[in-house]
Amino acid sequence: MYKETIFDDDKLHEECGVFGIYNNNDAAALTALGLHALQHRGQESAGIVAFDGENFNIHKGLGLVDKVFRKPEIMKQLNGSIAIGHNRYSTTGEPSIRNVQPIYADLAFGGFALAHNGNLTNANTLRSKLVERGALFQCTSDTEVIIHMMALSVHKDPVERLIDALRSIKGAYSLIACAESMMIGVRDPHGIRPLILGKLGKSYILASESCALDIIGAEYIRDIEPGELVVINEKGIISQKPFENKNGRFCIFEYIYFARPDSMMEGKSVYEMRKSIGAYLAKESPVENADIVVPVPDSGVPAAIGYSQESGIPFELGIIRNHYVGRTFIQPTDGIRHLGVKMKHNANKKYIEGKKVVLVDDSIVRGTTSRKIVDMVREAGAKEVHVRISSPPTKYSCFYGIDTPSSKELMAYKFDTDEICKQIGADSLAYISVNSLYKATGEKERNQDNPHYCDACFTGDYPVDLTDYNNNKIDEKITVLCEKEAS
Amino acid sequence: MYKETIFDDDKLHEECGVFGIYNNNDAAALTALGLHALQHRGQESAGIVAFDGENFNIHKGLGLVDKVFRKPEIMKQLNGSIAIGHNRYSTTGEPSIRNVQPIYADLAFGGFALAHNGNLTNANTLRSKLVERGALFQCTSDTEVIIHMMALSVHKDPVERLIDALRSIKGAYSLIACAESMMIGVRDPHGIRPLILGKLGKSYILASESCALDIIGAEYIRDIEPGELVVINEKGIISQKPFENKNGRFCIFEYIYFARPDSMMEGKSVYEMRKSIGAYLAKESPVENADIVVPVPDSGVPAAIGYSQESGIPFELGIIRNHYVGRTFIQPTDGIRHLGVKMKHNANKKYIEGKKVVLVDDSIVRGTTSRKIVDMVREAGAKEVHVRISSPPTKYSCFYGIDTPSSKELMAYKFDTDEICKQIGADSLAYISVNSLYKATGEKERNQDNPHYCDACFTGDYPVDLTDYNNNKIDEKITVLCEKEAS
Amino acid sequence: MYKETIFDDDKLHEECGVFGIYNNNDAAALTALGLHALQHRGQESAGIVAFDGENFNIHKGLGLVDKVFRKPEIMKQLNGSIAIGHNRYSTTGEPSIRNVQPIYADLAFGGFALAHNGNLTNANTLRSKLVERGALFQCTSDTEVIIHMMALSVHKDPVERLIDALRSIKGAYSLIACAESMMIGVRDPHGIRPLILGKLGKSYILASESCALDIIGAEYIRDIEPGELVVINEKGIISQKPFENKNGRFCIFEYIYFARPDSMMEGKSVYEMRKSIGAYLAKESPVENADIVVPVPDSGVPAAIGYSQESGIPFELGIIRNHYVGRTFIQPTDGIRHLGVKMKHNANKKYIEGKKVVLVDDSIVRGTTSRKIVDMVREAGAKEVHVRISSPPTKYSCFYGIDTPSSKELMAYKFDTDEICKQIGADSLAYISVNSLYKATGEKERNQDNPHYCDACFTGDYPVDLTDYNNNKIDEKITVLCEKEAS
Amino acid sequence: MYKETIFDDDKLHEECGVFGIYNNNDAAALTALGLHALQHRGQESAGIVAFDGENFNIHKGLGLVDKVFRKPEIMKQLNGSIAIGHNRYSTTGEPSIRNVQPIYADLAFGGFALAHNGNLTNANTLRSKLVERGALFQCTSDTEVIIHMMALSVHKDPVERLIDALRSIKGAYSLIACAESMMIGVRDPHGIRPLILGKLGKSYILASESCALDIIGAEYIRDIEPGELVVINEKGIISQKPFENKNGRFCIFEYIYFARPDSMMEGKSVYEMRKSIGAYLAKESPVENADIVVPVPDSGVPAAIGYSQESGIPFELGIIRNHYVGRTFIQPTDGIRHLGVKMKHNANKKYIEGKKVVLVDDSIVRGTTSRKIVDMVREAGAKEVHVRISSPPTKYSCFYGIDTPSSKELMAYKFDTDEICKQIGADSLAYISVNSLYKATGEKERNQDNPHYCDACFTGDYPVDLTDYNNNKIDEKITVLCEKEAS
Repeated sequence: MYKETIFDDDKLHEECGVFGIYNNNDAAALTALGLHALQHRGQESAGIVAFDGENFNIHKGLGLVDKVFRKPEIMKQLNGSIAIGHNRYSTTGEPSIRNVQPIYADLAFGGFALAHNGNLTNANTLRSKLVERGALFQCTSDTEVIIHMMALSVHKDPVERLIDALRSIKGAYSLIACAESMMIGVRDPHGIRPLILGKLGKSYILASESCALDIIGAEYIRDIEPGELVVINEKGIISQKPFENKNGRFCIFEYIYFARPDSMMEGKSVYEMRKSIGAYLAKESPVENADIVVPVPDSGVPAAIGYSQESGIPFELGIIRNHYVGRTFIQPTDGIRHLGVKMKHNANKKYIEGKKVVLVDDSIVRGTTSRKIVDMVREAGAKEVHVRISSPPTKYSCFYGIDTPSSKELMAYKFDTDEICKQIGADSLAYISVNSLYKATGEKERNQDNPHYCDACFTGDYPVDLTDYNNNKIDEKITVLCEKEAS
Repeated sequence: MYKETIFDDDKLHEECGVFGIYNNNDAAALTALGLHALQHRGQESAGIVAFDGENFNIHKGLGLVDKVFRKPEIMKQLNGSIAIGHNRYSTTGEPSIRNVQPIYADLAFGGFALAHNGNLTNANTLRSKLVERGALFQCTSDTEVIIHMMALSVHKDPVERLIDALRSIKGAYSLIACAESMMIGVRDPHGIRPLILGKLGKSYILASESCALDIIGAEYIRDIEPGELVVINEKGIISQKPFENKNGRFCIFEYIYFARPDSMMEGKSVYEMRKSIGAYLAKESPVENADIVVPVPDSGVPAAIGYSQESGIPFELGIIRNHYVGRTFIQPTDGIRHLGVKMKHNANKKYIEGKKVVLVDDSIVRGTTSRKIVDMVREAGAKEVHVRISSPPTKYSCFYGIDTPSSKELMAYKFDTDEICKQIGADSLAYISVNSLYKATGEKERNQDNPHYCDACFTGDYPVDLTDYNNNKIDEKITVLCEKEAS
Repeated sequence: MYKETIFDDDKLHEECGVFGIYNNNDAAALTALGLHALQHRGQESAGIVAFDGENFNIHKGLGLVDKVFRKPEIMKQLNGSIAIGHNRYSTTGEPSIRNVQPIYADLAFGGFALAHNGNLTNANTLRSKLVERGALFQCTSDTEVIIHMMALSVHKDPVERLIDALRSIKGAYSLIACAESMMIGVRDPHGIRPLILGKLGKSYILASESCALDIIGAEYIRDIEPGELVVINEKGIISQKPFENKNGRFCIFEYIYFARPDSMMEGKSVYEMRKSIGAYLAKESPVENADIVVPVPDSGVPAAIGYSQESGIPFELGIIRNHYVGRTFIQPTDGIRHLGVKMKHNANKKYIEGKKVVLVDDSIVRGTTSRKIVDMVREAGAKEVHVRISSPPTKYSCFYGIDTPSSKELMAYKFDTDEICKQIGADSLAYISVNSLYKATGEKERNQDNPHYCDACFTGDYPVDLTDYNNNKIDEKITVLCEKEAS
Repeated sequence: MYKETIFDDDKLHEECGVFGIYNNNDAAALTALGLHALQHRGQESAGIVAFDGENFNIHKGLGLVDKVFRKPEIMKQLNGSIAIGHNRYSTTGEPSIRNVQPIYADLAFGGFALAHNGNLTNANTLRSKLVERGALFQCTSDTEVIIHMMALSVHKDPVERLIDALRSIKGAYSLIACAESMMIGVRDPHGIRPLILGKLGKSYILASESCALDIIGAEYIRDIEPGELVVINEKGIISQKPFENKNGRFCIFEYIYFARPDSMMEGKSVYEMRKSIGAYLAKESPVENADIVVPVPDSGVPAAIGYSQESGIPFELGIIRNHYVGRTFIQPTDGIRHLGVKMKHNANKKYIEGKKVVLVDDSIVRGTTSRKIVDMVREAGAKEVHVRISSPPTKYSCFYGIDTPSSKELMAYKFDTDEICKQIGADSLAYISVNSLYKATGEKERNQDNPHYCDACFTGDYPVDLTDYNNNKIDEKITVLCEKEAS
């Protein structure tokens, strides 16, 4: 296939990043900067809601954070000392301004703004029931279900209403909300998606990753715990655990690929984790007499450095990435198609020529890109190409906030490793094993009864019920008020 | 004041035009043309919903019809043999894409699209109750209340649900709706706003005015009657009168100013009505020895012709209108401000000079423009300027779908005719009397107990309860989901 | 044909309007207002150059004046007490920002800005010679030739250079220029296109028409004379006549159609001229027992009033114009095409029905619209339709700044009046005669040897040599540097 | 200073990239792809001219290649089997569509399109003379002088005219031109800027770098030689050397920073050169007992790998780059300013903490960024920070097509290495020496009389006369026709 876009990189993709700050005169500006640092978690749209003690000031737009918030007059409108923001990457349909978060609603107690990272697994089931009751939905985001559930709660206090709503909700969610001069953070009982707490002077911050603290010079305090809800207001931070106690099942793919390498998660350096995975991979699947270790840029670099340092084989930039790749812009004619245009990567021929190459990447999803990269390295003159993958085979879809193809499109669901090796044209292929992966993160082998991570994409062991999926409600046509809009 | 915009013409303004067509392969294109003919009823935004037997295809946008529907790819998407459309001119706040009609919702029975001309007088009161029940509103338009009321109805059939909803609704409404392969038209029990029925081959048409039939060569059949609901489907037209019987109270200002002069309303030619009003005005308030009758262009022209023909005083274009006036575009400096820039009108000096002028206009609202025009005519050399107005003094706000200032801003609410004459600098001033106005339309004098028209803006006699107004709910902050949006 | 645009009105069109003001702190703003009043002379693009004593500040854009100069920051940049401006309507090819005037160049003596109304008849012939010398042209406008000729002049003084250049130039030109703290106005030796002088306090103004003075409250002084060049600087106005003396041949079509009815030209009121032409037409070609005189709006109105007053037949708005017509926006299907969509005009059925109608228009060019309008009036029920045209038959192209089709497309070039009457479907057709037209303007019959006006479009008597036309250089491919540009 | 943009990275910047292809049905599409691969050489604007045997089809625009050529309809217009293209990064003033290349002109022999990488050193001097002759310039680019010189040539043949023009021209230029069914390539006598020849099937290609061949799978043939002019037409390639023979002085900074690491120049791998420079730097300026070698991403990576491999100190990604950095978008308040926002880079704290760090970068220009990066590494906990620069001190401006500040802004012009070390806050600082740099590229020490490279930015030894600079014509106001335009 010719088409290559920034997302046509055969990767899984995080769907959202969230950021909130309490008690700062530059709340919206710092939120925009935080969202910018979290841009890798969602590139389709961005939004900020700022609360100025009286009004909720909102701006949302399609595109990258720096585009959406570039104009000074927009930032000026976002008055207030509390702000929450959201980056989004949507999986289906047209990107629509209607679905951009934070969602805002005036509820009986007043205004309420909500930003959500994750994905609910019983949203459509609840939605059907709400529609029967006469509720009208305005967007297709699962997050709106939380707001409708809150609207029906008998409680007066927004926190009580939110807890009420979340008790009916299943799935993965890290939420940041703003209501009545307070900022609220919640992580679902399994803590599948990350959420961290930071501090900048007297201002508290909630964010998906610690790199959003670093950009503004804020200090990392701790991760919000699985099932924890924090209310941040003038009295400080009040923490509670209002939900049934569950074991933490943090998403292990955050370590492998999603998170930025300079972030900390669960107190660990993501870069260190990736190098460690590369090192375990070198131990488990060495390549004898190889000449060079070449990363598939840019995400394969830390694991390749780990592999190189463990194996002693030199690390080389055998593949160069074009920094300016946005999206494919040329409609290919037949003549162009067969040229195998290399929009994004180019092999460094001089270093590849005649070499036995260890090619390190972090995952194979559909396998479309892997074949092209192996071919490119071979055409550049490599003697042998040995592919090493710093994750186990990706066999199952994620229902917790990661954009994954259906199982049928996942190469490792359909084929075993030998067959995949053939199809991508490698001389050898090895994935890291699940147990080595656990060890690389500092755990013992995977505890089958009570694993430390959510690794459903490798094992099919889903920690939260897939209610909608089991009710065939995943692809149901969604009931909304004014579904379409002017483009 | 310097600022002159297309709406700063000291006129009252219609807020909406509606159009729908059933059973035509070019439904959306004909709807766009119909909306274009109704452009004078709303210039802020336009929308069309087309139903293709399966899907509702929607496009809406801010701006004039020809801008919103200019692109061929947009028209192509609007597939379907039923289409309904809406022009809007909003009275308050920022024009927002969120408020553009037709409104669309997926209700329990399926899709429902609704276009509304008029204004509801108990919408905010109902809205409060709906919010208490947990309803979330998405826009600030009163029309959404109808949809929420329908969502709560226990009936299965969309027509039954609509009737159910409208039984709780007060105010002025001419509605065109589309659901389940049918088109529905309704006019409120008083028939305050117009709605007519037409035919083009096998296609039925509903529209605000007959000029929307003429543009596409369709035939005028009849007016939808006050309180009548028609369902147009494959069986033809089924009419019913599901509401309490009321006397018709058609808006008399449609004859005076709102409707296009080439439209027919209640079987009468609007142009003829305006000439007739001008003639009655000449009889009631003659100007002896006047040299010329000059209309304030363009709306004053028919009444001026009537005045001229009745009085025998020659009709002359003493004031020329710049066809290209859109809006004021120059920020005035002090230097410019005192020049009295004439963006829109210019006196025809040669014809004005030394003349005794009868200046005919259709209304004085705030009086801001009248003073400027009288001054302009005097500066051009007129010997005397006698102002004749083809409506009675406008003293009261409209709550039925016309954009009016509050009473306090209405010149005739604050001052008597002598005082107004002084303030606008005329040698004499006369309005047509309410009784002459009725006679000009072919009625006898106004029947005080049971007048034929809604003339509340002149008399303060409001035919429908002003529930929200009486409950102080007119300017209440409105509860919506995601009130603001990216601009 | 279905296509109707604002220019598809079967009219000839003026190609440009010019305005300049000297010695005013709001020079650019007043120029924008002046251009707005001259918008009918060119709607495609607009530009202003302001001189602040040191720099020439320029802004140009495609579209109407109020769009091009709407943004306050644009007006702010246009600093200076001298400003000249230009409206343009181009006849061929894509509208291009490159061709928008005023043209600006840094010449050896300094900056020079030039705005031109008219058309040169030897521009391409001169251009070829300049290119042979090594000159590179940047736009396709004939006006650039003037600048290149100035660049080659040996004189130091800009006025001398301009005179030098104009001595080689043939054609119609009314020019406003700005150089070295002075404003210059020139009218070609025949004075074909208009140029008037006005005053506002201490500021001098040059403009195409007096309506541009009225909008800002300025005073009309006089017309610049044929062959006159005025320099306006700190000493006042210095007038000279540097060219060979010729008889004035002012364009008579300015009276018939181009100019705004509220303008004065050669000291005469355009509105008065048009009424007078209508009256002469009534005398020359009466319609017995006609019921109503109906103008084709809007340009036919003054002549129709004249016809009505002279004949005693009542004037009625039998055709209503949609004020919102911009351009055709719906791609017609076959189904729509045969409907004969009436985007711009609608007959006022009630008044037309059963009547013997005199339909007054100002010209028939290709005849495409006339047939449609006669048909429309007949379909509305007219008993008879008698067409009266307030210009003689238009048989010849204009080469002096008016957009005309080639002779072959002109209906009156191909057919006699009887045949045209048949083709447009009228019961009778009459044009005003050339002699009556002259009389209507206050002249005696046309002096064949020395006519007072340029009437070449009726008579083929061209006052200025058509050098390019005779050299077959009219449609020559034009030599430019960077002809095309990003759109 | 807070402001950080993509160019505020304290680097020198290449000003242009050029690409041309002869004899290919997809000429324009392949040119767009080639320009995309050369995007690092110019990000402000892009343009393509395609010749279809009859017409020159042109599209230009501001922005990145993928934006300018995204629309399929644009690519469709660019018909033809010859195409030449240009990327531009301008150094001064507003980016202007008028200055975007290729430049096109119709000369006496026909159309001529020209794309230029480099900078002329006597353009303004020639321009003055041309203006005196009456030439009117349309843009401010020095390249237009070449066209004007060609326009004056007495030769008929475009190649002869081009040679004629270039004999008067001084400076650095790699040109690709298209005229009369041929493609022409020229490199100035010193060959300062690169230009290579490639082949794709039967199609010949000229391009700035070989990475533009790789993207479309074309084959690298050879570099065009200094002073060589090649004509590519149906007969194949004809080479000539029409200029005075000079020694080659290829720009050494192409190896250090400008070129893409996967390109070949003078037959050498740029990546290999950079690693080699890093290795020589390690030998010349070792850091004893250092813990890690950290590159300043991304340009410092190859040199850092070379340093690491030579020294045995581990290579680590101690600084992470945000891939989404476009430009600074938040207007900093005082509160934000003092936070030291890290838009582009973030230190990898875990790896930095407690380490003795060797920080490798390719250059220090103004020094603004170096201080921030050293500070960031220290704040992340580094014990010591030793900076190693893979170029000699940059002391002199480039006049040959590279965007450089004036000498006064160059840190190394003002201060010696010790002082710079203090100012950037490093524990030690070393630049590579000029001689080691030469050795790293495979040369012996620099031959002072006849050096192999242009290294004027380090040595001040300028190979081509700086005529304009010496005539004080560098910043002269430039004479153009229509200098300014609508934005």
